[in-house]
Parts: sequence; structure tokens; C-alpha cells
Amino acid sequence: MTRWRLTVEFDGGPFMGWQRQDHGPSVQAALEQALLQMTGEPAVVHAAGRTDAGVHALAMTAHVDLAKTVSEHRLREGVNALVRPQPVSVTAIAQVADDWHARFSCIGRRYLYRILNRRAPPALDRGKVWHVPVDLDASAMGEAARHLVGRHDFTTFRSVHCQSQSPVKTLDQLTVEQAGEEIHIRAAARSFLHHQVRSMVGCLAMVGRGRWAPDDVRAALEAKDRQALGLNAPPEGLYFVEALYP
Amino acid sequence: MTRWRLTVEFDGGPFMGWQRQDHGPSVQAALEQALLQMTGEPAVVHAAGRTDAGVHALAMTAHVDLAKTVSEHRLREGVNALVRPQPVSVTAIAQVADDWHARFSCIGRRYLYRILNRRAPPALDRGKVWHVPVDLDASAMGEAARHLVGRHDFTTFRSVHCQSQSPVKTLDQLTVEQAGEEIHIRAAARSFLHHQVRSMVGCLAMVGRGRWAPDDVRAALEAKDRQALGLNAPPEGLYFVEALYP
Repeated sequence: MTRWRLTVEFDGGPFMGWQRQDHGPSVQAALEQALLQMTGEPAVVHAAGRTDAGVHALAMTAHVDLAKTVSEHRLREGVNALVRPQPVSVTAIAQVADDWHARFSCIGRRYLYRILNRRAPPALDRGKVWHVPVDLDASAMGEAARHLVGRHDFTTFRSVHCQSQSPVKTLDQLTVEQAGEEIHIRAAARSFLHHQVRSMVGCLAMVGRGRWAPDDVRAALEAKDRQALGLNAPPEGLYFVEALYP
Repeated sequence: MTRWRLTVEFDGGPFMGWQRQDHGPSVQAALEQALLQMTGEPAVVHAAGRTDAGVHALAMTAHVDLAKTVSEHRLREGVNALVRPQPVSVTAIAQVADDWHARFSCIGRRYLYRILNRRAPPALDRGKVWHVPVDLDASAMGEAARHLVGRHDFTTFRSVHCQSQSPVKTLDQLTVEQAGEEIHIRAAARSFLHHQVRSMVGCLAMVGRGRWAPDDVRAALEAKDRQALGLNAPPEGLYFVEALYP
């Protein structure tokens, strides 16, 4: 039995999310099906994070145990050939120790959220950005973001479906950067609550369009109440960037 | 009658190219159909350049004459609403003089070519880059590119379908830059022959993978013979970046 670490890029558009679902395609099922075809073994692929429907990944980390002996090169090439035409690509692969776990060994997760902030809708990046057609004030959004960094009870920014034991998380980074016509929001933490990044981005957008003052984000945080949420940003602008390990 | 200048972003994937065709969808037809629905006028949209099937545009410039009186805002919003779901977006619009012409007034055109140079196929940028899975030497490609800059007979780099009166063109810029996993080739000239950018990129890729020496590109140019062409790069990596006017 060999444990393999996979680095996976995917376009979340056609998927119900990372996790295997009965009612539609998932990234996990796409990879498991390709591995089954290649090795004949039904194997479970574990990821560092379970992304929602429509959320993309630049480099999700996952692992899988395989009995079959195969080279790194052949495994990566085989999975990439068999997973087509689904938009999933294994960009790197390596053998890891048997006790290494993509989810439980992970000590940090990074996300990027892309807002296209112009009047005209996207043609080239359709489904890859959140299109906000009204002017956003990125500097006010950056000021609001600073209220969320640190250790807090993030109940306001937590989905009702969240399975985390505690709403208390430490947000290490939340930055807002104007990049041409886009606004990029970067978030880093050991772990996130379900919908936390999209909920934070939604509130920052309320500030960006002037409906909220930067301090209103602090008030929403302190309310510890999902009803205080301004807006949940849509999934198509969100990218899982990287999982960090010791 | 008002002449309007349109700046157009499009994903070339689903189109037979810019120009109206009998046998399939085109960007021109998509825009003309939206304008017809909006104004009731059958109008011809003229572009700075006629891109091939699969080629994208970050900012194509075009013009159209309309009798109907309409505000800039309403015209842009109306076209963008009516052109959906086709991946075409009018990003800017302005009134111009009656003798201004998107094609004939244009004094410069810029293209970008994106190569994804890694083993794994693209998941997020499928159809938006040329995937070259073998290592390319960007610095050798840059050296080869310098042989093509300047005024030359580009017969080697010209499609048999090219309608230009002369194969002699002045290439103002051809640069090669490594950008993470991508190689970006930027080309600028007053005008280009049909397939010129893709033909030049194809030869640079021959150099990049070591099949050609940089000097072989000069020899191919001097041959003035289409048979001397190494390879025509595929359309999906090519972007019309900008048209310049006095």
C-alpha cells in the first residue's frame, strides 16, 4: 500500500463541489473514477478542504492509498488522461508517509476571491469571477477587512450547514488589492468555517459599494448572528489556492 | 447617422472567428444581431482585425453606424444584454467622427500568445492557452524572436489564404517572457499577415524545445517559403490585445 499526495487544479463550474454526491458530478468522484479505471481499485480520495459547488482550485491537495505499484509519472499521466473531458488536472504527485493526511496534517489554507469590478460583464472569465457592475472602493474594503483578522467567533460568517465544532477561528490574513479591473481578496487561516470566505467577501462588498461603513463589519462580527450577515458572495469568484503542511 | 466605436472582449472558443460566416457563429454576427434587435437597423460592424476561429480578444476595436439616437450607456447595456449567452462583451463605447474607421484608421495592433508549459493539462484555462507539455527554453525563444523584428518579407509566416497585397511587413515587437508556468509572447506591428503571429509562435516553440537553433528561425525567414515553416501554433493561445489609433 502506498499513500500518494496529489496536487489538483480544477474548474468548479460543472461540479456540485469537491465532495462525492449522489445527485451530481463532483471533483472527488471524477478522480476516484479515473483511479479505479487505472488501477482496478476502489479508492477514496481525501482533500485538504471540501469546496462548494462552483468553487475553483489552483492547487488543492489530496491523498489516496493504492495497492498497485505504479510510477509517479505513470500515475499522474494516467489519471489526467482518464479524467478527461472533466476540467480536473493533477499537476503534481508524490509518495508520502502512511500517516500523512491531506486534511488532518494541513496547518494552513489559502483562498483567493476575484471580483471583476466594471460595468461590462465578463466574456473571457465568465464563471471565473464575481461580476460587480457598480464601483467598489477597494481601500474602504481593505479597512473593513482588518476588523476580521485575528481570533474571533465567526458565527455571523458561518453557514447553517457548517459542521465545525467551534465557530472560533483565527484568521491570519485578509487583504484587498486592486488589480486592474479586478479586486483580489486573499484569505489565510489554519482552517475556515463553511461559507466563511464568501460571507466575509460579501460583507466587504457591502462596504465597497458604500452601503456599509468599515465599522459595520466589526459590528456584524460582534453580533455573532447569521442574520447580521450582509451578503454571501457567489462561488464562482472563489479559488482554493494552497494547503500548507509542516 | 452616428458612428460608434466599440471596444469588444470575446472568448473565441465557440466562434468561427470574427467575420460573419454562412456555416457557423461569428463574433461579428453576434454583435450585429444584438444591434438589430435593439435598433431595428441591419448594420455592419467593422473590426480592426479579423481573428481566426478560436482566437480571443481582450479589447478588439470595431465601429458601426446607427441612425437611431441612443445614449452611450443604453447602447452598451442593451448590446451586452442582448448578445447573451454568447461570450462577447462591449467594454467601452464612444461616438467618433464619420470618417473614423476601425480598420483603416488603425495604426498599430498588439497580440499576446499564452503557452502553458507544464506536464499537466490545463483545467482552469482550457481553451485559453496552448498546452505544451515538454520543457521550453524561453531564453532561446527570445533570442530567436529578435531575428524576426524589423521590416522583412514574411512569406514563410503567411497563410496561403492571406489576402494582403504584400508579404513585406514591419514587426515592431516580438518578446518572450516566462510568467510562472506560462510563456507569454507579445507581438506588435502596424498590421500582420494572416496566421503570422501563430506561425512565428510555432517556430519559436521549435526553438524552445531544442529542435531548432535560434538561427534556424532567421533561415526560415530568409527562405521566404511557406514550406520552411516549422509549425503553426493553435488558435486557443492567441489574444488580440489592442488596436492603436492616432
